[in-house]
Amino acid sequence: MFNPWPEVGTPLDQVATPMPVIDEDRVAANIVRAQRYVESHGKAFRPHIKTHKIAAIARQQLEAGAVGINCQKISEAEIFADAGFEDILITYNILGTPKLKRLRALQERVARLSVVADSAAVVEGLAATFETGRPLSVLVECDTGGRRCGVQTPEDAAALAERIAAAPGLRFTGILTYPAAGGAQSVEAFIVRTMELLAAKGIECPVRSNGGSPDLFSAHLVPSATEHRAGTYVYNDRSMVRAGHCTQDDLAMHILATVVSRPAPDRVVLDCGSKALTSDLLGFSDYGMIEGFEGARIVSLSEEHAVVDLKDCAGTFAEVGAMVRVVPNHTCVVSNLFDRMVFHRDGVVTRVEAVDARGTVW
Amino acid sequence: MFNPWPEVGTPLDQVATPMPVIDEDRVAANIVRAQRYVESHGKAFRPHIKTHKIAAIARQQLEAGAVGINCQKISEAEIFADAGFEDILITYNILGTPKLKRLRALQERVARLSVVADSAAVVEGLAATFETGRPLSVLVECDTGGRRCGVQTPEDAAALAERIAAAPGLRFTGILTYPAAGGAQSVEAFIVRTMELLAAKGIECPVRSNGGSPDLFSAHLVPSATEHRAGTYVYNDRSMVRAGHCTQDDLAMHILATVVSRPAPDRVVLDCGSKALTSDLLGFSDYGMIEGFEGARIVSLSEEHAVVDLKDCAGTFAEVGAMVRVVPNHTCVVSNLFDRMVFHRDGVVTRVEAVDARGTVW
Repeated sequence: MFNPWPEVGTPLDQVATPMPVIDEDRVAANIVRAQRYVESHGKAFRPHIKTHKIAAIARQQLEAGAVGINCQKISEAEIFADAGFEDILITYNILGTPKLKRLRALQERVARLSVVADSAAVVEGLAATFETGRPLSVLVECDTGGRRCGVQTPEDAAALAERIAAAPGLRFTGILTYPAAGGAQSVEAFIVRTMELLAAKGIECPVRSNGGSPDLFSAHLVPSATEHRAGTYVYNDRSMVRAGHCTQDDLAMHILATVVSRPAPDRVVLDCGSKALTSDLLGFSDYGMIEGFEGARIVSLSEEHAVVDLKDCAGTFAEVGAMVRVVPNHTCVVSNLFDRMVFHRDGVVTRVEAVDARGTVW
Repeated sequence: MFNPWPEVGTPLDQVATPMPVIDEDRVAANIVRAQRYVESHGKAFRPHIKTHKIAAIARQQLEAGAVGINCQKISEAEIFADAGFEDILITYNILGTPKLKRLRALQERVARLSVVADSAAVVEGLAATFETGRPLSVLVECDTGGRRCGVQTPEDAAALAERIAAAPGLRFTGILTYPAAGGAQSVEAFIVRTMELLAAKGIECPVRSNGGSPDLFSAHLVPSATEHRAGTYVYNDRSMVRAGHCTQDDLAMHILATVVSRPAPDRVVLDCGSKALTSDLLGFSDYGMIEGFEGARIVSLSEEHAVVDLKDCAGTFAEVGAMVRVVPNHTCVVSNLFDRMVFHRDGVVTRVEAVDARGTVW
């Protein structure tokens, strides 16, 4: 079987395309920059591993000072527990006997494990699974405008916290939100009001966890938050540049692609389709940015083809057979498509890491 | 590490979610129905393996009468060659020394291997790689309105065919198109004109290969085509129902998902995000159809969450913790996200197949 993974020392122009590649120096700089910023505002930083899914990168994040990691599914947490991680927050409602059993087994081997809940149904399942001897830390997930999961009001948050605090096998640890971009004010107001309500009930709320990469460098606008979680910042992507979260020089992931066809003067086709870029638009009207060819727009993707419209591309485009570099709209979803990730420094491969938690959704 | 794959005999309601599952009887019926239809019009049928990526399913397709298989990338063809397949068409321009070397090695072990070309650059690379003793079969890819790859006119097709025919190591075998949906008339006209031009040059064109699942059952509207290629028909999906290609009863793939949150009266959240469904819209404005809950719309996806808007859902939605079944917009891309695929009959697991060619894009 063909082995697409290059040896250390291989120049990137000899790598099989399509292939995402990660710039070592930019990753290292992104990790340090975010950590220092969050620390400088007196908050803990908890990276979300969903962006890289690689234990070695999470270790770099902990070495820089992160308090622990954030996983989305138990299956991810299980893999990172196997890799020795001792402080794991799973920001997902865990439901049903099989998953609750796995959660209990996981808690027995992870020093500090916490989860979230946003309904009585979730709390009931957790409460029936854990016992007094080794209670599980639970945070209440709050919807502060992101309109995904989460209780809708501080009153509901406080009521659910009370229910958690009353369960012998659970320990109420705090509140958590994944806010809408630009939602600092709403987050702060939600936290402050919930803490007031909890204080009136005599319930402590040590952790107030805020999140999101687009708002990472606005974390200081939520003074009541004790912790920030972010994933995408580690590689960054086109959506992060648009959000003003980073510059082009902070983009650590590129997709190397080859021009495979020039069927018409205003159209070229690249070999990076939705199996390399995914169809995530994130508000863009095209599927990625081709470096060095301003105005060239990836207007459609099929699984193995990216169709590029050159109507508004001023210069000469790369010829059939040439390699180009594409900045993906969304980096996290690209990580989930490849079994391994190729790292480089100055265009030479430095390491190839297994994407340890690729494909885990359970 | 958690093993998400169920034992044979497991009822589907005990399967870990999110999980795509395939109905054995519907797959078998889809395979036979398409094969009989194409054969009845005197054409060869060549299934595209991109939809399932599973050798065992491709074998079912050959047993039903398919002439061979269609792969999109060499890496897929290598995997199917390893699995013993002897007639493989790769419908992709193959460029660059490393891929051409692999193609040559592949041709040495596949009885009938053919590829496409749509430019002089591609033909030159192939011509420099193959020799008289064992020439490579090459088809000219034609753009008949699909606006992806392909030469633009019958004149260009004939000129490229002449170039292929003149290369000692290549054998011109015919022409191929992946048309726009509903493009039968354009395809027929393109083929007829190209054959006239080739006949005038004394060049035979034994294979005229047409393709696409949306137009599969319109294949008879292209009488000059000798072969039809299709992938999606084997599982079918929401886009195929919309195209009138199949009914709901022909849908072989469903994504089992669990309701994980009901944050507001008009909103629920399922555990099947873009890592289970992908973000492929294919012209829809939502990300899949939830069976049995008409009007419930999956309005946004993040990696692990599907946010469902219930505003227009008349009945009572499933409760937190309950399982639902989602019909994906696009089935092929779902296959690429899971290492294995779970098959069932009447709701009981029959087999779990490795998705042999998952993640191969090279």
